[in-house]
Amino acid sequence: MNERSRKLLGEFVGSAGLAAAVIGSGIMAATLSPSDVGLQLLQNSYATALALAVLIAVLGPVSGAHFNPAVSLAERVLDPGARPMRETGLYIAVQIAGCSAGAILANLMFDLAPVALSTTDRADAARLLAEVIATAGLVGVIFMLVRAGRTALVAPAVGAYIGAAYYFTSSTSFANPAITVGRMLSDTFAGIAPGSVLPFVAAQLLGAALGVVAVRLLAPASALPTSGKVTQGT
Amino acid sequence: MNERSRKLLGEFVGSAGLAAAVIGSGIMAATLSPSDVGLQLLQNSYATALALAVLIAVLGPVSGAHFNPAVSLAERVLDPGARPMRETGLYIAVQIAGCSAGAILANLMFDLAPVALSTTDRADAARLLAEVIATAGLVGVIFMLVRAGRTALVAPAVGAYIGAAYYFTSSTSFANPAITVGRMLSDTFAGIAPGSVLPFVAAQLLGAALGVVAVRLLAPASALPTSGKVTQGT
Amino acid sequence: MNERSRKLLGEFVGSAGLAAAVIGSGIMAATLSPSDVGLQLLQNSYATALALAVLIAVLGPVSGAHFNPAVSLAERVLDPGARPMRETGLYIAVQIAGCSAGAILANLMFDLAPVALSTTDRADAARLLAEVIATAGLVGVIFMLVRAGRTALVAPAVGAYIGAAYYFTSSTSFANPAITVGRMLSDTFAGIAPGSVLPFVAAQLLGAALGVVAVRLLAPASALPTSGKVTQGT
Amino acid sequence: MNERSRKLLGEFVGSAGLAAAVIGSGIMAATLSPSDVGLQLLQNSYATALALAVLIAVLGPVSGAHFNPAVSLAERVLDPGARPMRETGLYIAVQIAGCSAGAILANLMFDLAPVALSTTDRADAARLLAEVIATAGLVGVIFMLVRAGRTALVAPAVGAYIGAAYYFTSSTSFANPAITVGRMLSDTFAGIAPGSVLPFVAAQLLGAALGVVAVRLLAPASALPTSGKVTQGT
Repeated sequence: MNERSRKLLGEFVGSAGLAAAVIGSGIMAATLSPSDVGLQLLQNSYATALALAVLIAVLGPVSGAHFNPAVSLAERVLDPGARPMRETGLYIAVQIAGCSAGAILANLMFDLAPVALSTTDRADAARLLAEVIATAGLVGVIFMLVRAGRTALVAPAVGAYIGAAYYFTSSTSFANPAITVGRMLSDTFAGIAPGSVLPFVAAQLLGAALGVVAVRLLAPASALPTSGKVTQGT
Repeated sequence: MNERSRKLLGEFVGSAGLAAAVIGSGIMAATLSPSDVGLQLLQNSYATALALAVLIAVLGPVSGAHFNPAVSLAERVLDPGARPMRETGLYIAVQIAGCSAGAILANLMFDLAPVALSTTDRADAARLLAEVIATAGLVGVIFMLVRAGRTALVAPAVGAYIGAAYYFTSSTSFANPAITVGRMLSDTFAGIAPGSVLPFVAAQLLGAALGVVAVRLLAPASALPTSGKVTQGT
Repeated sequence: MNERSRKLLGEFVGSAGLAAAVIGSGIMAATLSPSDVGLQLLQNSYATALALAVLIAVLGPVSGAHFNPAVSLAERVLDPGARPMRETGLYIAVQIAGCSAGAILANLMFDLAPVALSTTDRADAARLLAEVIATAGLVGVIFMLVRAGRTALVAPAVGAYIGAAYYFTSSTSFANPAITVGRMLSDTFAGIAPGSVLPFVAAQLLGAALGVVAVRLLAPASALPTSGKVTQGT
Repeated sequence: MNERSRKLLGEFVGSAGLAAAVIGSGIMAATLSPSDVGLQLLQNSYATALALAVLIAVLGPVSGAHFNPAVSLAERVLDPGARPMRETGLYIAVQIAGCSAGAILANLMFDLAPVALSTTDRADAARLLAEVIATAGLVGVIFMLVRAGRTALVAPAVGAYIGAAYYFTSSTSFANPAITVGRMLSDTFAGIAPGSVLPFVAAQLLGAALGVVAVRLLAPASALPTSGKVTQGT
């Protein structure tokens, strides 16, 4: 297996793991704590934050551990030399495939139909604003740390950020177009109805752009202590 | 954008992020777990601790990540050379503006009126004592670590401290005049009535002074291994 | 006491501590929170994740902190020179003895009969699939980090992984044949009926093999920056 | 203030902070979550773990951050040269005074009488066994890490250990004679009746001795990579 295949396999495994963790823990929490939605979200957030930090720490050295088209696109703007354009495209395709596979795996582990389209509509104005903010924050956290040369902090910081953002945004912070597609395939706690997917993705891309602007203002490349290679968790 | 503007923007963004995290997670928790206030506070504390640690890690290299007039004032006493007096004044103004903006953002993300003055009275004697202790502890944690040259620990330690202090103080540890003003603007779980703001701020400033005394006793400048530059999270 | 005895004592103490933590916290949670199973699992997961991370950090330098036959067997394949075959056999025996002793200790600390066979059947197809995934993930996390030379991350990463996997797998992620045997000895929250033990162990060994394949694909030995000595937490 | 006074002040402040965190968070949790004792313990454990880790990180460089006579006594045996006998005696006195002051402070912050003797009997055989195990584990965690030269891990590891041990021991892991005395002074969630104090302390001292034996077996001084100076969190 050549290096690019290894990177793409890393992105696939990581994206699948992320989707399985998000959706699987949502199913578990909703099943075991039917009477308190906050308690469900606490369990979902706790499991997601831990799993995401571990996935980035483990797969960062392999692929950069993006697992998220918004991150790969922000990298294109902030660090165009990090990888060829074609590789960015392959990353995004593999992220979507991985998140879809992870959703199916979660459904199977909980003895549900492999695919069931979610019926949870989420696309109202307040939650779209929340997705803009959530994604801007995620891009800001990753690339500010990378530009400061603090790459070892990316894994725990991204886990912690998403754990918190499940709570402080009304949308529970999807902040990732690939996971948004994956969540569409499970009609459970973490799911999202197909009709809400495009508005969510649009809000996320807008948020990523806002995050890129913030990074440029707060950590201009001219002030970088390091090369600024955009790789999470290395 | 010159370096001072970048610092002020960092303080603004961080203060806004902190207020949005505190207030937003409070709204989420109170909405989803209406029947158990302890469960609401657990979710609010968990999200705040994670968000605060991330914000300090990300913005420490930009502005020092104070987000808190009590910290900026304590820095003036403990490390007068850290920045010009005028910059301290600008920091405080920007922290208050940022926390107010974050409160408005939280309200909007949860589809509430942008500003609604809180009706939660909090200023009784026991809770004012708690604010003194909470702020003294916060100042102690930050500057003891800085004076010991352990600046990399400031971000997780401050997050952990505030996460715990939400519980071990009866006031739920505001410990920050700027966030106190911001919380006044949201009539939700984390809010504070305008009439309680001044007593809270007075208690916080008294606590900051107490913290400064404790730092001087426990870590006198003559024993410093490093320059003691007062910067969080770097 | 010679070095091998010290290693075996380390594995025994660590396996006993792990089983006591898993089973003891399960008893505590089920006793104190009888009305919400999700809340029970949250407490069980939280205590297990913290205890496991601490045990690996403390005993890693002594024995490598496997506590798990699936890990010792994966080490045999991925790093055959790490220890003699006979030592691997002794490790596995001591892990099973330790987890059994820990189960008895937990029962005694909670004033229960020292041994009571669990009556909780767990071996259905969905949960066996979940054990395959859980164990593959555990082996992947450990050996990917070791191969990348990030051994200091193994302790917190394994704690975090298991904490999350309690939620995102329908089986609550035993992922360890020794702890599976130990849990058989306590008829409480974390128990497993004897009839489910063999299917669980088989699924775990299959998962370990899958994890070994994934590690070989994602981090081939030829790309190793370090010697790849397979030792957790050192 | 000379160096010894600074050390004693550090132990006093840290012990007071620990007791205030343990007792204060217990009061908060029991008040806000009256209907689920497990949820109370989760909040109490979460706040205690975070506060303890922060206190050790902050005060480790000042006094070694023992806050616990069982730790100071274990140090006398495992590292007799760490400090003069008389200083160990002063440490213990100050730890008890500090924990008592912290209990009073917690009572005052929650608008309770400064001192109210607890009426919670805890000294049955199962819980005394649990205190033996809890204290042995605590001593093991601290001194195994110190002997391995991993002192930077002591603060988070001790916080995590106690957080877990609140759950996996039936006694909720006091593991500290000074905090046992302090908890006697608050008739709230974390309290202990005066009649249970001596049996608890005896069990803790027995556990500390057991921990010392385990450390000597698992990490003999002859194998020490460092001087083994017994100081937490430095």
